[in-house]
Amino acid sequence: MTLFDDLTRAIGSQWTDYTEHEFVRRLGEGALPLPAFQDYLVQDYLFLIQFARANALAAFKSTSLADLEQAAAGLSAILHETGLHRRLTAGWGIAPEQLDAAREKQGTVAYTRFVLDCGMSGDLLDLQVALAPCTMGYAEIGRALAPALEADPRHPYRDWIAEYADEGFQATARAAIRRLDELGADGIGPRRFARLAEIFGAASRLEADFWQQALNAAAPSAPADPSQKETA
Amino acid sequence: MTLFDDLTRAIGSQWTDYTEHEFVRRLGEGALPLPAFQDYLVQDYLFLIQFARANALAAFKSTSLADLEQAAAGLSAILHETGLHRRLTAGWGIAPEQLDAAREKQGTVAYTRFVLDCGMSGDLLDLQVALAPCTMGYAEIGRALAPALEADPRHPYRDWIAEYADEGFQATARAAIRRLDELGADGIGPRRFARLAEIFGAASRLEADFWQQALNAAAPSAPADPSQKETA
Amino acid sequence: MTLFDDLTRAIGSQWTDYTEHEFVRRLGEGALPLPAFQDYLVQDYLFLIQFARANALAAFKSTSLADLEQAAAGLSAILHETGLHRRLTAGWGIAPEQLDAAREKQGTVAYTRFVLDCGMSGDLLDLQVALAPCTMGYAEIGRALAPALEADPRHPYRDWIAEYADEGFQATARAAIRRLDELGADGIGPRRFARLAEIFGAASRLEADFWQQALNAAAPSAPADPSQKETA
Amino acid sequence: MTLFDDLTRAIGSQWTDYTEHEFVRRLGEGALPLPAFQDYLVQDYLFLIQFARANALAAFKSTSLADLEQAAAGLSAILHETGLHRRLTAGWGIAPEQLDAAREKQGTVAYTRFVLDCGMSGDLLDLQVALAPCTMGYAEIGRALAPALEADPRHPYRDWIAEYADEGFQATARAAIRRLDELGADGIGPRRFARLAEIFGAASRLEADFWQQALNAAAPSAPADPSQKETA
Repeated sequence: MTLFDDLTRAIGSQWTDYTEHEFVRRLGEGALPLPAFQDYLVQDYLFLIQFARANALAAFKSTSLADLEQAAAGLSAILHETGLHRRLTAGWGIAPEQLDAAREKQGTVAYTRFVLDCGMSGDLLDLQVALAPCTMGYAEIGRALAPALEADPRHPYRDWIAEYADEGFQATARAAIRRLDELGADGIGPRRFARLAEIFGAASRLEADFWQQALNAAAPSAPADPSQKETA
Repeated sequence: MTLFDDLTRAIGSQWTDYTEHEFVRRLGEGALPLPAFQDYLVQDYLFLIQFARANALAAFKSTSLADLEQAAAGLSAILHETGLHRRLTAGWGIAPEQLDAAREKQGTVAYTRFVLDCGMSGDLLDLQVALAPCTMGYAEIGRALAPALEADPRHPYRDWIAEYADEGFQATARAAIRRLDELGADGIGPRRFARLAEIFGAASRLEADFWQQALNAAAPSAPADPSQKETA
Repeated sequence: MTLFDDLTRAIGSQWTDYTEHEFVRRLGEGALPLPAFQDYLVQDYLFLIQFARANALAAFKSTSLADLEQAAAGLSAILHETGLHRRLTAGWGIAPEQLDAAREKQGTVAYTRFVLDCGMSGDLLDLQVALAPCTMGYAEIGRALAPALEADPRHPYRDWIAEYADEGFQATARAAIRRLDELGADGIGPRRFARLAEIFGAASRLEADFWQQALNAAAPSAPADPSQKETA
Repeated sequence: MTLFDDLTRAIGSQWTDYTEHEFVRRLGEGALPLPAFQDYLVQDYLFLIQFARANALAAFKSTSLADLEQAAAGLSAILHETGLHRRLTAGWGIAPEQLDAAREKQGTVAYTRFVLDCGMSGDLLDLQVALAPCTMGYAEIGRALAPALEADPRHPYRDWIAEYADEGFQATARAAIRRLDELGADGIGPRRFARLAEIFGAASRLEADFWQQALNAAAPSAPADPSQKETA
């Protein structure tokens, strides 16, 4: 049992509310409306910029050279991913100017700044636990949706699914799981675990809200939904 | 013209979208449903805890004893306000246990962590500008709604309106306006102003979302609104 | 056994190198040259400003209202102490202008910024452990030197010794000891303890250096000592 | 006139006290005792770890992707430099275990934590100004000492001098000078300039103390120098 397993178990259905969200299900079926996916991609790009900052924060909080190097590698990987993102979005009909002019929506602000604040108010383990739903969740989703690619050679979201199903991303996620165990190797008492589970649960809910935010953006009948107002 | 005036002008209707929001208007008319107000109060209590942290951050970022003392006084004032809040909410039918068990909603997380991050990534002026919509906006709302108290001696939201219309709070807001000018006394170039206006606009939108979040909570037809999911 | 006891034991003679430093011994005997004491007082004033910031940081890092209130009280207490300091130094022949114009020496910079960085890179317990040598050490020194006041009714450093021997300060130190145990109540594994002992040891050495810095300032034969150059 | 020129002028002889320090002069003459150089190298290694953290902090404080990428590149470059350092020190008679077991001295703690705190309490420009004496100073020293290598083909400190005289490092320093001007492009008022000059002066004095610390370590008659006590 890894710490990640313990945390997933501790938050119960909040984990699957995120990893099996309607957005994910419809994406796997190839039935997700393109506008929802485009809205998600734009917000995810803005999200990555803040996640790069979160990895920089992890580097800053490191007390050993090994920790520093690991966090710096994470930072470089995310910055590389934003480049990929810029190219991919073009293929999905989003012009680079659109990406640059986009504004963070409330769900994007809430999730990203929550993670950054966990890192500021807590220690490195608090920060990595706040980052975990993103890495581990996407890896799980990639594995779950991969069979859909075999079934449908012309799957509309092939590139996205393939990226997270890929062994490279899977290895990153496994390394992140081991990393949590290393950071917690000293023993995690009940109060600490409760705090970590609180962070992990909140981050998972914020991930689910992030999917929902994209669904709402494409919903024909969502004119007055305040969560869709661009907020920052 | 104060910096605050310049910022308010720069963000245009985003300021009045917040200060003249439907929640505010109905509160002034005494027509706001109690559940919306109760939902607001609970979230506002959670909000104050994070705002106390933002003032602590301002103290930490101070480089002079005078700045430190001012920020420490702000911190004490907010902590005092949370005590008041605990007592007031009881009068509005919210048990202390309910307050303690409450979870931050997405709009609360987004606004509070955004402000904290402005303080972490920028300097003291960035932080104070992020805090400004709260202080100055509430003072403006207090002044705007005060006449309603004279018109209706049994106004249901008298205590709340009176608190922000009160000369004590008004003086605090005026001091905060002067403070922005002190912090910017050295001259604010166009790039810096654009960044400050961006922060001020985002914080104002997040305030408006905060009102909307409470309206949604009490709306009979808002079962599936994701912005109402408790997120952190 | 408190965590504080464990930490004191873990760092061995580094604790007494600080609490029984020559500066302390001569201060107790009333034999400390006034210039050394004056130099110390000026640097200690600059030190307190940074320690106020460290308490503000503790407030910022708090995740509960109770933690916030405790840290805010600590911040207020230190700011109050700086006022006392300003008045006391006048009595010891240091003009207020001298205090305001003073520059931090290297030992002052090293100690204060080390503590602040422990708080930024670690969590609340790391920060409180970095602050502990100051609070607990001064209380211990106050108790150790108190008998000297009875022996000598005209002790030249009576006011200083009396302040730290006073029950008020002793109670603060006892509360700080209990606080460390609360923060560590969840269990402290060997790796974490090693890290805390490293912080505690470094802070104790930096305290000893702080005494030595003042002795050197008053030493007739210390013209070229680089540690006495004012550095920040 | 660049901002860097203005800052150098503003701090007067504090700049040359650093760049033309006795350590530098004797290093250029090939007359620096090896123990002084070895002591410097070990502390410089510890210094680089904290400077990597300072660059991570710059990345965290970035608000644009371009700033983030620049800071991340700086972080990678420093981490790369620590690897070089580990290999170079072996050639100068310092075993890797010695490097790993080394403890930061007071001058190392003071300088590094001062820079980190400038970054935490201020904004990105404050942080970059605190980092400037290191980058620009070493480039200036490299240029000043380069002729010594031509005069003496068997110069004992050839590798060190060559590294900083190298066009690669010189280009980095020129880019850092331009970077300061970009960050200040919006205009720097007198109060802000005074604050930046204060930071720049303090960092330069801390650099000079860093050289002196190494000289003292090798001085036969410096047994009781408290600045040589290992502090953190």
